[in-house]
Parts: sequence; C-alpha cells; structure tokens
Amino acid sequence: MSSPEIDALAQALARLPGLGPRSARRAVLHLLKRRETALVPLIAALQSVAANLSTCEICGNVDTRNPCGVCTDPRRDVRQLCVVEEVADLWALDRSRLFPGRFHVLGGRLSALDGVTPEDLSIAALVARVRAGGIEEVVLAMNATIEGATTMHYIAEQLRGLGVRVMQLAHGMPVGGELDYLDEGTLAQALRARRLVD
Amino acid sequence: MSSPEIDALAQALARLPGLGPRSARRAVLHLLKRRETALVPLIAALQSVAANLSTCEICGNVDTRNPCGVCTDPRRDVRQLCVVEEVADLWALDRSRLFPGRFHVLGGRLSALDGVTPEDLSIAALVARVRAGGIEEVVLAMNATIEGATTMHYIAEQLRGLGVRVMQLAHGMPVGGELDYLDEGTLAQALRARRLVD
Ligand SMILES: [Zn+2]
Ligand SMILES: [Zn+2]
Repeated sequence: MSSPEIDALAQALARLPGLGPRSARRAVLHLLKRRETALVPLIAALQSVAANLSTCEICGNVDTRNPCGVCTDPRRDVRQLCVVEEVADLWALDRSRLFPGRFHVLGGRLSALDGVTPEDLSIAALVARVRAGGIEEVVLAMNATIEGATTMHYIAEQLRGLGVRVMQLAHGMPVGGELDYLDEGTLAQALRARRLVD
Repeated sequence: MSSPEIDALAQALARLPGLGPRSARRAVLHLLKRRETALVPLIAALQSVAANLSTCEICGNVDTRNPCGVCTDPRRDVRQLCVVEEVADLWALDRSRLFPGRFHVLGGRLSALDGVTPEDLSIAALVARVRAGGIEEVVLAMNATIEGATTMHYIAEQLRGLGVRVMQLAHGMPVGGELDYLDEGTLAQALRARRLVD
C-alpha cells in the first residue's frame, strides 16, 4: 500500500475499536475491490449520520434525531428513568430491551483522580428532569467500580426528598465490570434484582 | 440504535472483514462520539480514495494512481515478475518487502467448479508483458491449493518458449493455505527456496 490516500484510509480505519492495523488493511482492500457495492455505500452511510448527528437535549443519547428515538418512543414507560454513565451503556441496555423506561446519560463518572466533579456530569439536568415530575423510579445503573459507586451515592443524595424511588442494579455484575460488556443474562439478572440504594 | 441512519451505518461497517455486528456497533458509537476527530476524517479518507481509485492497467493492482505505485517505483527490478491470484496477495508480498520486482494480478484462479476459464483471468495480458521483453524471471505465486496448482501449471505452459525462467514458490506454504494469511517468516522461506516449475 504505497499510495498516501490508501495509507491514510488504513490508518483512519485502524483507529476504530475492534480493527487493528492488519484487519484495517483487509477492510481497505475489501472496499477498494468493491467501489460501488461497499466503498460508496459506506461513504453515504457515514455522511448521512454525520449530517444528522446530534446529542439528545433530553437524555444525552447520540442519535440522528433530537430529541432521540428513545425519548420520542411512545411505548416507553415515562415513570421509569435509568441513569447511565455513557452512551454505550444506554445502547447496551436499550439493545437488551430489558428496561421499559427512558434514560439519562451522565457523560462520565465522578473521579477525584481524573478531576471529574459533579459539574462535569449532567447531574443538574437529571435533578431538573426528576423535579419536572412524572418520574416515579430512578435506576442508577452505574458501572460496578469504585467511581461508579461514588457517583451512584452522590446522585442518590441529590435525589433524596424529590419523591422518587432511587434504585441500584443488583449485585451480580462482576466487580470492576463495565456495564456495556455484560451479556444479556447478567444484565437481566442485575435489573430484575435491583434494590433501593442504601 | 433506533435511527435508520445509524442502523444503516452499523450494517455497512458490519460487512467489512474483521468487524462483526457487535464490533460494528462499537465502531459506530466511537464515530458518533467523535464527529470531528473520527467521523469526518474517515469520510474524507474514504472519499479521497473513492475519487482516485483505479485498477492499474499494467499489473491489475488497485491503487489511487494508474499505473500503480508499484509499477512506477524506479527501485523495482523490472527483470523479475511475481504473478499472484488476487490484489490481496500482491499487498501481502509487497508489505513483506521480500520480492524486489514487479507484480501481475490474475484476478482469480482457474476453477472448473466455479466455471473460471483462462479467458476470465488476465493471462493473455501476462503473456503480452513477457513477450514485450525485459523480464527474465517469472515467479508463479499461486495459493497452495489444487486450483492454484492447476493455474500455475497452465500459466507455466503458456510461458514456455518465451525465454523466461518460470519459478514457483517453495513448498513450505501449508497445503491449502492462502498466501495472504501467511506470516512473513513462512513467506520468506517460500520465496527463498523457490524452484523451477516442473
Ligand atoms: Zn433522548
Ligand atoms: Zn501496477
């Protein structure tokens, strides 16, 4: 691969999670050999997403619509709200179809080490959503890490006295486990056995 | 992922070799969260390749230049020509820097089963290149499969009497092995011990 354009494409693809340099080269070759059936459609799909991409003003999901498809889905139970650290967690839970309510993406977790404070996360927006009414239960679906637990307890404190049940996922998640790597069985069990935050 | 644009992108990415549905979803999320630093640059890289993509009229390589970077590289030994089945094989050999000459891509292999005949491959073009003169050695680097061997012997027959040494790769490639999956050590050994086609 001597052409600078092809090298640049291989490097751009190699930066995607799950594609190393070797598989990126295979992907490039796949695209080069199928200009009309793979390369051009991939460009169109990327452009369509790039043109419409936005962050949902309600929940923080990324989608091509704003408000996002989850927030505008009329089949969702608006009384239940699941709070997650990252968009990836929202997607993992949404894909599993285990949670019938809506979501709230914090955009991270509290971390003294990384200097992440409550103001860096969308916690005020969460409190405002709950204050606006209609929500009966908030499930704090943080990762089962020290920082996840710290974040969970901080948020539970902020929601105290607002008249909502504040729940956490059941232990059952492997300690240190990242939510969006869990299989659906583990996720299902953790949701089913959720309990009030201590 | 409920938006049709995002679903379409995930499907387009999942068709790339090395990316299953799960890693395609992760790649999509990676791109959505990094519109300016990942999504937009990837689109630009793909477009640049798509705009300039062509098949080299000399060797059959795919590149953004025609003739390709290999054929126009002045450091190549024009007396040596390596014949491969597919562009992927050319790239694998080129990456290894083990072969100092130029290449010729057949575009496949003879196959009674798949109805691939000599006319379907660029064998006439290969004979014409050799007839044009300047080439002293042709290395037939077909895959170590039955069809590869059939193709190799057919081409050796076509090149008989044209005054070139017709070589094959040493045994050392695993039988049934695909050339572009080989590690460099095996490739080096197979090239080093190449021998005249029987
Ligand atoms: Zn939303
Ligand atoms: Zn060429």
